[in-house]
Amino acid sequence: MKIICKKTDIINGVNISLRAVQSKTTMPILDCIVIRANGNNIKFITNDMEIAIETVVPGNIINEGSIAINAKLFSDIVRKLPDSDITIETNNYYMTTITCEKLEFSLVSKNDEEFPDLPTVEKKEALVISQFSLKEILRQTVFCISDNESQKVMTGELFEINGNKLRVVALDGHRIAIRNLELKNEYKPTKVIIPGKTLNEISKILSGEVDNDVAIYFTNTHVMFEFENTIVLSRLIEGEYYKINQMLSGDYETKIKINRREFADSIDRSTLLVKETDKKPIILDIKDFNMNLKVNTQIGAMNQDIEINKEGKDILIGFNPKFMLEILRVIDDEDINIYMTNSKAPAFIKNNEENYIYLVLPINFNAVR
Amino acid sequence: MKIICKKTDIINGVNISLRAVQSKTTMPILDCIVIRANGNNIKFITNDMEIAIETVVPGNIINEGSIAINAKLFSDIVRKLPDSDITIETNNYYMTTITCEKLEFSLVSKNDEEFPDLPTVEKKEALVISQFSLKEILRQTVFCISDNESQKVMTGELFEINGNKLRVVALDGHRIAIRNLELKNEYKPTKVIIPGKTLNEISKILSGEVDNDVAIYFTNTHVMFEFENTIVLSRLIEGEYYKINQMLSGDYETKIKINRREFADSIDRSTLLVKETDKKPIILDIKDFNMNLKVNTQIGAMNQDIEINKEGKDILIGFNPKFMLEILRVIDDEDINIYMTNSKAPAFIKNNEENYIYLVLPINFNAVR
Repeated sequence: MKIICKKTDIINGVNISLRAVQSKTTMPILDCIVIRANGNNIKFITNDMEIAIETVVPGNIINEGSIAINAKLFSDIVRKLPDSDITIETNNYYMTTITCEKLEFSLVSKNDEEFPDLPTVEKKEALVISQFSLKEILRQTVFCISDNESQKVMTGELFEINGNKLRVVALDGHRIAIRNLELKNEYKPTKVIIPGKTLNEISKILSGEVDNDVAIYFTNTHVMFEFENTIVLSRLIEGEYYKINQMLSGDYETKIKINRREFADSIDRSTLLVKETDKKPIILDIKDFNMNLKVNTQIGAMNQDIEINKEGKDILIGFNPKFMLEILRVIDDEDINIYMTNSKAPAFIKNNEENYIYLVLPINFNAVR
Repeated sequence: MKIICKKTDIINGVNISLRAVQSKTTMPILDCIVIRANGNNIKFITNDMEIAIETVVPGNIINEGSIAINAKLFSDIVRKLPDSDITIETNNYYMTTITCEKLEFSLVSKNDEEFPDLPTVEKKEALVISQFSLKEILRQTVFCISDNESQKVMTGELFEINGNKLRVVALDGHRIAIRNLELKNEYKPTKVIIPGKTLNEISKILSGEVDNDVAIYFTNTHVMFEFENTIVLSRLIEGEYYKINQMLSGDYETKIKINRREFADSIDRSTLLVKETDKKPIILDIKDFNMNLKVNTQIGAMNQDIEINKEGKDILIGFNPKFMLEILRVIDDEDINIYMTNSKAPAFIKNNEENYIYLVLPINFNAVR
């Protein structure tokens, strides 16, 4: 194989490819990027057995061929090369030579035949949404995914399509995050659970442009994201997702409107007094047009008043500060609405259009105080 | 005690104070910043038993007094407060209340009487140099200090004053770094060894302005740096420093002039092939107007040509890439001169005025190849 590419193109390709390379793997070949030059295409291929990525890198093919080269080393070397044309050439002994201006690296590489094949996903009906929308949806939901591997379904997100509606759901036993999106086209009903890890990596690769689309293909076992020069393949999580509709009934006793930033900053400060291990709640005392926030720990106490708008009853309610803060940080609205019933029932944070709905369980602060 | 300060002033004071707080200490009181309000002065005092810092923070004293408050917690809290006036008030039970706008923190604090007294340094003759010069001198030498505690003298830097000349020396057994500076005034001969840790912290506190001076006072056992609102006190290292003059004799067989950046970039790349544990040299093959750089390891090989100017003989010589790179990174000149004798004798990097002199021992590459 002999190819010539621009440094910037290789770096773009490498940055995408690295998302499917695990630093610790029991199969040494998975440390590698496979570079495959065939026909008109130079492809970088990586696979960590959960996610596989294939991205096309612009360049000239002098000789066809392929090689598997240590991903981290290749990445580090290319980054430190002059900003110029880079020639990558292999010989019969799996040595790769990287040449740039008056500089030459020779690296011990591997036969790519050991590299596992990527699963095949037939391109039938594609769900098409903008990179911007997908990236936003993921940012606003993935933090609610549980990392509890014993409940596998919780480690992924439900993507549910009905007609022209997409609903994305993540939950961790304390919170539920829901994003609703209207699609341009009608689709046949689909319900899949995509692993959280896949979604985290996807959101790092997506450029997030409004004008660039992502096509998403589903099979019974796999999902494929296709955008620009890249495809990302992942298995799906098997199993039945939680029925959440019954948890979303509409009654409430108290509705408040509060400045999101002010509320978030106050909770953020309070966490300085809370050690990871103790489960101290932040207690909200809502009376008339005031919310008093209180935290009391061995280290010290915090106390702050914030002006609010309120409809309905006064309420005293406690939350896990970290859980609440994560939600407040991903919402873009200046003011948010919080709907509460009593100090033991879940609270809802949502906008009027219900583009986003967050459910948070309160903490019984009498027990922990 | 009750004081009112601006957030920015407290943060400046805290940033300086934190340089003398160790995260792990066997004396819990040393975790603290002492806030002392007396007369017209609010002082923040810290002491890690190697360095002590005292910095004056602008503000209003409502009631005099003092308190010792956990440095990290105080720092974290103040950073997250609104950008406004902050009131700090203590009560008789060593509780500190920090109030800012509609927000209040109460923190468990300590009696500052347990806090160790700072050593006293009489302000006699001061060595005065600009913050800029001191910061530059330190940047260009401290990386050559050894961290080998068994040879205590090597863990510090020699500050040697003769008339209007200051010479600063650091060495680690493989390299020597020397900076020479002409002073505005004449001073009596002085030779002290200042601990590397002190110098590292000082260089982080110095603003580095050309127009701001530092006054440095020496006693037999201590050094005191005074600048702006801050004094930094440190013990000196006892003992006799190495006699280096005999190592600096002037003969050479080869002198080359090379673009510093190009040389540094090339060595930097080569380090990707060298694992921390193996001592592979970078081999320089200097012939006529070309320097060929070569590294050869289990991972692969690198090979690069760089144009040079040469006087004297051709030479083949090997260096530890990391040691050479650190030197190249702190020199500001576009081109540097390297003086060599043979593959076993030290090489010198210096400018014509000898503002800076670096000595580097080569590696015997026949043995390690």
